[in-house]
Amino acid sequence: MLNVAIVGPGLVGGALIEQLIAHSTSHRFAALPIAIVGLLNSKKMAISQNPFSAADLSNWKTQVLGSSAVVSDLHSFTEQLSSLQGPTAVIDCTSSDAIAEQYPQWLAKGLHVVTPNKKAFSNDISLFHKIQKLSSSPQGPSVYHEATVGAGLPVLSTLNDLVRTGDEIVKIEGIFSGTLSYLFNNFSAPGATALFSDCVAVAKASGYTEPDPRDDLNGMDVARKVTILGRVAGLDIGTDTLPVENIVPEALRSVETADEFMQRLPEFDAHFKELNEQALAAGSVLRYVGMVDVKGGKSGVRLERYPLEHPFAALKGSDNIIAFTTKRFPNPLIVQGAGAGAAVTAFGIFADLIKISERFNK
Amino acid sequence: MLNVAIVGPGLVGGALIEQLIAHSTSHRFAALPIAIVGLLNSKKMAISQNPFSAADLSNWKTQVLGSSAVVSDLHSFTEQLSSLQGPTAVIDCTSSDAIAEQYPQWLAKGLHVVTPNKKAFSNDISLFHKIQKLSSSPQGPSVYHEATVGAGLPVLSTLNDLVRTGDEIVKIEGIFSGTLSYLFNNFSAPGATALFSDCVAVAKASGYTEPDPRDDLNGMDVARKVTILGRVAGLDIGTDTLPVENIVPEALRSVETADEFMQRLPEFDAHFKELNEQALAAGSVLRYVGMVDVKGGKSGVRLERYPLEHPFAALKGSDNIIAFTTKRFPNPLIVQGAGAGAAVTAFGIFADLIKISERFNK
Repeated sequence: MLNVAIVGPGLVGGALIEQLIAHSTSHRFAALPIAIVGLLNSKKMAISQNPFSAADLSNWKTQVLGSSAVVSDLHSFTEQLSSLQGPTAVIDCTSSDAIAEQYPQWLAKGLHVVTPNKKAFSNDISLFHKIQKLSSSPQGPSVYHEATVGAGLPVLSTLNDLVRTGDEIVKIEGIFSGTLSYLFNNFSAPGATALFSDCVAVAKASGYTEPDPRDDLNGMDVARKVTILGRVAGLDIGTDTLPVENIVPEALRSVETADEFMQRLPEFDAHFKELNEQALAAGSVLRYVGMVDVKGGKSGVRLERYPLEHPFAALKGSDNIIAFTTKRFPNPLIVQGAGAGAAVTAFGIFADLIKISERFNK
Repeated sequence: MLNVAIVGPGLVGGALIEQLIAHSTSHRFAALPIAIVGLLNSKKMAISQNPFSAADLSNWKTQVLGSSAVVSDLHSFTEQLSSLQGPTAVIDCTSSDAIAEQYPQWLAKGLHVVTPNKKAFSNDISLFHKIQKLSSSPQGPSVYHEATVGAGLPVLSTLNDLVRTGDEIVKIEGIFSGTLSYLFNNFSAPGATALFSDCVAVAKASGYTEPDPRDDLNGMDVARKVTILGRVAGLDIGTDTLPVENIVPEALRSVETADEFMQRLPEFDAHFKELNEQALAAGSVLRYVGMVDVKGGKSGVRLERYPLEHPFAALKGSDNIIAFTTKRFPNPLIVQGAGAGAAVTAFGIFADLIKISERFNK
């Protein structure tokens, strides 16, 4: 049995709990060797020697983290988890730098780590190397972070398989942001007529963007994903040195509020319209992409043109698409689909958990 | 250390041996916990208590299976493998029914099975169920067969992850034959003018088809892949009941030789031209697809039309493409890339082997 503790159960952690409960109460499946034994959020925590029941987990906010829970204490949480019988995995569902910095301690205590939190793998490379080293022993704990890139899409598992079997990665190119996918799929398409600022407004109103859309348009989220892919492919890259095209107009970067930004964005519609018309006139569309260029050294994040017959041009909705060009796949291996959302992110974590649980079977 | 024995080392087995040697002699990697200890072809076999050396494996035809090898004897091969120390996997690189029927015996003796051979998973469902049962214990041996569908593309691993985490599969639709992909990507595209018989002739001359192209055009290879996907998704389907559109013109099915078939195929160019023109007039192209329709019951293999903006219409070369529509991915999760060839098939086997080896680490 793999013990599981969730740090920061929110939308994603909640979806994971739901998926685990649905699985455990379904007649379609044999019992999973996975049980939730701990929850911790910024205020409260609870750890149990025995797995929480489906009934308690269904109402975890009021039951597990209700009146019987104690005040959060990360140190005590870690100590209690590492004293449990059997293998234990901590799932970090936060996007916190501070929690990411706990991974080396967790791993040193034999706790596995599964997470959609990009920070540990895209912050300072020394943290990444430390985590890699602590999880490199076949007998020791492991780290799985499929959901840091493309949510549940098989992106990192595929890259890992390619790398570990000795394929040579030439480049990895993709649309890694659901927000920017949605934005440019709608703004830059043959026959599309909407203004850029209107597309951003619709995306914001539909809940596709961060509260301040500049946090999407500045490319930093994509830069983190490119950094993770690049490092898994063996490159020493980081968000501090990666060329990132910030498409927030320079004059609006220092504007204080998101509202003011949105109000003034129409001043730049002519600029975006010109870029778009130039692309369309050349039989292409604009897409905001990340690139890991292992052989050519042109890794980066930027607005690029793609011809209409390119798979990136045909993307729909807010899907992600990732193309791996390798020695064995000169015509790239492509993975595409929803790369954001609670259910598909929880799916990526769940699949990682099953992989860890399989390592204890034999 | 995982012991590995290869049955039927030919193009694919040879590529796998090459990849394992390249890995073991590369400075990029830590030593793999995988070692080749046995080879068997239709004539000769060799099994060693100690792993064969890279030098011997580099010339396995004359070294490992040279004068010191003994006459093939499947029974003795199995006995010797099951008496080895440590976990052992048999890799079936044949396309033989008889070898597929050995899997239950191998599994019963604790031997893992990895294979690109579709037979065991698409022949009689009783064999499939027997294999499933014998490999279902977490403590027992396992069966991995990623390369039976889409070669090394992450198709079955993705489907397994979706199923095991409780997603509901709605349908799986794809172009599963490199040959038929190549044929229709060239024949049915806006502006394409070649005759169908010429496209088949070019595909045959380029080595893309079976010696008798009717073995591709009859759809049975695709039907086997659809059967495998359907069964992994939980359906009791088989090639005997699946509706399969055989696109070999009826008058040419009983023609004796491949040469005569190729000579007479031009008689049917008008038929294929008409189908193609009807599709193009409707803004679509023709693609030969397989479908697992879990919810709708319309599983089958057939020639279908897809609108030009559909990802299947934009496919290039001889690539495969597989779209999973599920509850979590209403807009499908798509995997695309080379689905045939020795190197990418060996990659799929290699990745499966690593997954087995990981199960012995802890």
